[in-house]
Amino acid sequence: MQASPSSPTYPIRIAVMGGGNFGLAMGTLCARQGYPTTILVRDEEIAQTINSEHRHPRYMQGIELPTGLRATSDPNECLPDATYIIHAVPCQYSRGFLESVKDFIPAQTPILSVSKGIETSSMGFMADLIKDVLGEDRPLAFLSGPSFAREIVEGLGATAVVIASEDLDLARDLAALISDGRFKCFTSTDVIGVEIGGAVKNVIALGAGMCEGLGLGTNAMSGLVTRGCNEMRRLGLTFGARPSTIAGLSGVGDTFGTCFGPLSRNRKFGYRLGKGETMEEILASTSEVAEGVDTALAVVRLIEKECKGYRLDLKYPILFGIARILEGKSTPLEGLELLMNMPMQMENFDEGRLGKERRRDKSDFEDKTDE
Amino acid sequence: MQASPSSPTYPIRIAVMGGGNFGLAMGTLCARQGYPTTILVRDEEIAQTINSEHRHPRYMQGIELPTGLRATSDPNECLPDATYIIHAVPCQYSRGFLESVKDFIPAQTPILSVSKGIETSSMGFMADLIKDVLGEDRPLAFLSGPSFAREIVEGLGATAVVIASEDLDLARDLAALISDGRFKCFTSTDVIGVEIGGAVKNVIALGAGMCEGLGLGTNAMSGLVTRGCNEMRRLGLTFGARPSTIAGLSGVGDTFGTCFGPLSRNRKFGYRLGKGETMEEILASTSEVAEGVDTALAVVRLIEKECKGYRLDLKYPILFGIARILEGKSTPLEGLELLMNMPMQMENFDEGRLGKERRRDKSDFEDKTDE
Repeated sequence: MQASPSSPTYPIRIAVMGGGNFGLAMGTLCARQGYPTTILVRDEEIAQTINSEHRHPRYMQGIELPTGLRATSDPNECLPDATYIIHAVPCQYSRGFLESVKDFIPAQTPILSVSKGIETSSMGFMADLIKDVLGEDRPLAFLSGPSFAREIVEGLGATAVVIASEDLDLARDLAALISDGRFKCFTSTDVIGVEIGGAVKNVIALGAGMCEGLGLGTNAMSGLVTRGCNEMRRLGLTFGARPSTIAGLSGVGDTFGTCFGPLSRNRKFGYRLGKGETMEEILASTSEVAEGVDTALAVVRLIEKECKGYRLDLKYPILFGIARILEGKSTPLEGLELLMNMPMQMENFDEGRLGKERRRDKSDFEDKTDE
Repeated sequence: MQASPSSPTYPIRIAVMGGGNFGLAMGTLCARQGYPTTILVRDEEIAQTINSEHRHPRYMQGIELPTGLRATSDPNECLPDATYIIHAVPCQYSRGFLESVKDFIPAQTPILSVSKGIETSSMGFMADLIKDVLGEDRPLAFLSGPSFAREIVEGLGATAVVIASEDLDLARDLAALISDGRFKCFTSTDVIGVEIGGAVKNVIALGAGMCEGLGLGTNAMSGLVTRGCNEMRRLGLTFGARPSTIAGLSGVGDTFGTCFGPLSRNRKFGYRLGKGETMEEILASTSEVAEGVDTALAVVRLIEKECKGYRLDLKYPILFGIARILEGKSTPLEGLELLMNMPMQMENFDEGRLGKERRRDKSDFEDKTDE
């Protein structure tokens, strides 16, 4: 399918669930392509502001939204006749939200999730969570990559992301639908790889922020982020992800942008921890959702549940170290000292041991040590 | 061997060839460990300034060098009795330099190269070049990773690098020698992987600088750097490197630091190109060596020589695109438009085709598409 605003091959309507920055960006892209697009928000006042003034009262300050982008607080107004539904509700709020709207979503309507993370209550990724609520047969796709919402909407530069789905045709349809000259969607079938990258990068961003807060410089931050991506890669292999997905836009690429681009919520949270503030102080002073905090605690529990072997904290020292800091069991500086003094010597310390963990596949053959 | 300044297991002397920023940083690390360390520089006046004032007249402004760090312009004064020699001369000048000093270097003295790049005349990496001049049996090791020289010397944060050698014992000895609480050396046997990362990251840094010069934002830069690292990975697989090395400190990690840290020479060069200056204007206005420019042209010729197949420019669009810009055949903006409009759809566009290229090994089995 080659989508085109002038001659659509069949009528397409888009619904976007969630009116945060990324939901607004996705809605804007679709509306610009000429598709009737409606954003579903909780607050009717926000919907009215978007419809009458073509701006969001809080997000995307100074940006005029396309007139073709409508908003509503009534799921019945946008979900039943949507060709595709974009899910842009933060991970930890997704289950409650989906439960509240699921009766308005027809059985075969595909969902494109742009949310990331691990649900703390179920330790499931977005795919698990959505299937839990909307059924195992739901056609699903996942968009991820280095994509600050404001840059997408301003269309200043170019953005490249990946859309993953077990159904490659769905991924291709969505990629053709959303892509334009400034927003390029690659496709993939590696859903778990894309989900693990999206979740773990927010945890690494917390660590990168701590490095900045401590004033440790570019070397330390690059080293931490690189070793963090190694743990992302390792976790990916354990769950059957392809290493090239971890190395790609949704893994390392999104980590690049989040750790080194404009201060994201997660990095800001880590930065304040690095500066010496406590979790309680930070949480009390902001209403922003730092997804990485919940994900950091969930990912460690997921590793403990799914990975066999002793001293998993030595195999995932950065992920466990960040969780310990968030739990108040060590300070950011102590965490860093611990990392620097770990006895590991070979760069790829996890070589040759993956067979003990879950799901073996061909990718296990890479990285065997040659000594 | 566990090196310790208080009780060395045998007397160790270090010589550092090249008094640029990185040579000074390596010399400083060794001297701080208590090893008698001498830097070999071309200019006797510079040697005298270092010896009498413990500072370099041009580099590392404001930094006081350790008193145990000596300098000389006489190779006979430092090379014949050195236990280890650190090679810190820029790639394109290395052959001439080594020819001029090779008679002072005993047959079995190990060389630790911290230089990176592809020699334009031979299209060889540092290992090829050094073996060419100093003999095939020369014990060699290579240090690489995200390591801004000034940060190493200031010891503010922590730096993690990798030392690779075909002889793992040599890599371990050097790692123990150089590492301290703030500078951690991991070890590896993947020499070509470390060399390819070190060379290609400077080319990617040129591209990242162009993105910045064009004002394209974080999304575009992260996308370009990620896709550039994919090409680094692909080239690595072709030459028998391990993917985990490319994903590690010397590949992706060094690329992180170079593309997102303080403005490096290569990124600055790319930035000025992005701003609209010509190659000639930039070269006429600076004496700084932007290694990436020579390497960018050499790497494309190396790919054309070593890789089989048609339209290699479609397999390495970023490396070929940057070379075209440096050759004046397109502008940075045209290069970017070309990238965005390439027909590739799957994220891992190189899957399943590596078998046609040089050296197959187990790593070829990773990343096979599962469709």
